[in-house]
Amino acid sequence: MTDDKLMNRLSLNQITTEQWNLQEAVEGCVRHDISWISVWRHKIEEIGLKQSKRLIQDAGLQVSSVCRGGMFPAATAKERAEKIDDNKRAIEEAAELGTDTLVLVCGPSADKDIDTARAQVAEGIDKLVPYAKDHGVKLAIEPLHPMFAADRSVINTLNQATTIAEKYSANEVGVIVDVYHVWWDPNLYHEIERAKGKILGFHVSDWKVPMADMFKGRAMMGEGVIEINRMRKAVEDTGYYGPIEVEIINQSLWDRNGDDVLKQVKQSFANHV
Amino acid sequence: MTDDKLMNRLSLNQITTEQWNLQEAVEGCVRHDISWISVWRHKIEEIGLKQSKRLIQDAGLQVSSVCRGGMFPAATAKERAEKIDDNKRAIEEAAELGTDTLVLVCGPSADKDIDTARAQVAEGIDKLVPYAKDHGVKLAIEPLHPMFAADRSVINTLNQATTIAEKYSANEVGVIVDVYHVWWDPNLYHEIERAKGKILGFHVSDWKVPMADMFKGRAMMGEGVIEINRMRKAVEDTGYYGPIEVEIINQSLWDRNGDDVLKQVKQSFANHV
Repeated sequence: MTDDKLMNRLSLNQITTEQWNLQEAVEGCVRHDISWISVWRHKIEEIGLKQSKRLIQDAGLQVSSVCRGGMFPAATAKERAEKIDDNKRAIEEAAELGTDTLVLVCGPSADKDIDTARAQVAEGIDKLVPYAKDHGVKLAIEPLHPMFAADRSVINTLNQATTIAEKYSANEVGVIVDVYHVWWDPNLYHEIERAKGKILGFHVSDWKVPMADMFKGRAMMGEGVIEINRMRKAVEDTGYYGPIEVEIINQSLWDRNGDDVLKQVKQSFANHV
Repeated sequence: MTDDKLMNRLSLNQITTEQWNLQEAVEGCVRHDISWISVWRHKIEEIGLKQSKRLIQDAGLQVSSVCRGGMFPAATAKERAEKIDDNKRAIEEAAELGTDTLVLVCGPSADKDIDTARAQVAEGIDKLVPYAKDHGVKLAIEPLHPMFAADRSVINTLNQATTIAEKYSANEVGVIVDVYHVWWDPNLYHEIERAKGKILGFHVSDWKVPMADMFKGRAMMGEGVIEINRMRKAVEDTGYYGPIEVEIINQSLWDRNGDDVLKQVKQSFANHV
């Protein structure tokens, strides 16, 4: 793949520039010649879906995904039903913004019973599939690092995500490979191969020690220990050549000038992805 | 199992009372009627092996394990050989203190190449086995949580640990099940069953969110989300009825009076293990 082609796949996951609202992020992408963006729902909410769509369309950007649906487990059937409703709104937003990919962060357990929570995730996805399909949106299960098993997602390995996705067609449910969440997995390359045809997104950042914060401690590509380039090639070997989202959740980036962040993102992407 | 029998299995892993030297920890165990202790090497070093042995023997304590050997990967063959030598000292210390269990924290990679680091761990263990066997000491591989893959151990699942242990007899190499490190694993109960006959220790603490510190953030049993009791029973189903180490690495415990900590440890153990 030529350098140009690779750079054309760079997508700004909006959380990387959390200091910017959607308009600022869209304008930033245009200034820095980034043609993809992944949009977060709390940013859509600030200005409304209609205005969000107009901004993105007018700028000629493509939306790689909407972040995020999921959060399925809950203590009561009523709460779980409310979560399904909220996911339906997320599907509508994805469709309206012209992306076929809704990223699912599947949610923590409501109590100590992690097995039941995992079953509730599978159930939640099953309930959503027809609605998503009707809207031309695929559900992209993102396994989260096991250190988030208690507070963000009980889906913690690519194996789990692919096992759920396998129950559906590739048009309905797939997986996201985020290097930060899966790099440690002893079966990683086997699992990437197994996910062939079901990979709906590839996210990059890095893992640097010591980590200042478990949630907001992700590093710029190249600053940590992850074999990002090896993983990118393994994902390409399965046939995925779609957008590559730069998703760096890091307070120190949010405290900086967004343009400086984007410059560094592009440089790190070119050198280390 | 009667309550009494369970309480008799409680072992104080010395890191739980890091504020105490070995003499204080031994005296604390006696005062609180705890008959097992797991000894850390930096505490042995403070007073020497001979004095450590005398203290423990005079108090009538049993040593459940020595913490820790391991740390196998390194950039050069020379450094790896030095690490093997250090592990031999650890084996001698375990034997001298009358325990047959040396806990291995296997170490991080020297660079980005995690596959090679994992191979170096297997190699290191292979080199140590004869020496350990000669000393009547078993090598107990403790898989560490994947969040420690970059800085403490590239062995991150019970599956990995058991796969290495399977190459040896149960007298030579086994595994440690520490609830904090493995609770999130979707294959946990299958892997515990698979480790039957090879489990050399069971460690307890808890996972509470938010976690103040990735390393020093473990919680008292019952304060977090881990199904400790379920896991204890699964480990017993494999035939392990040995000591259960309370290993809580937490700065706030270290800042407290050690006797208060031991009181709480016993109470939490009785209620939640």
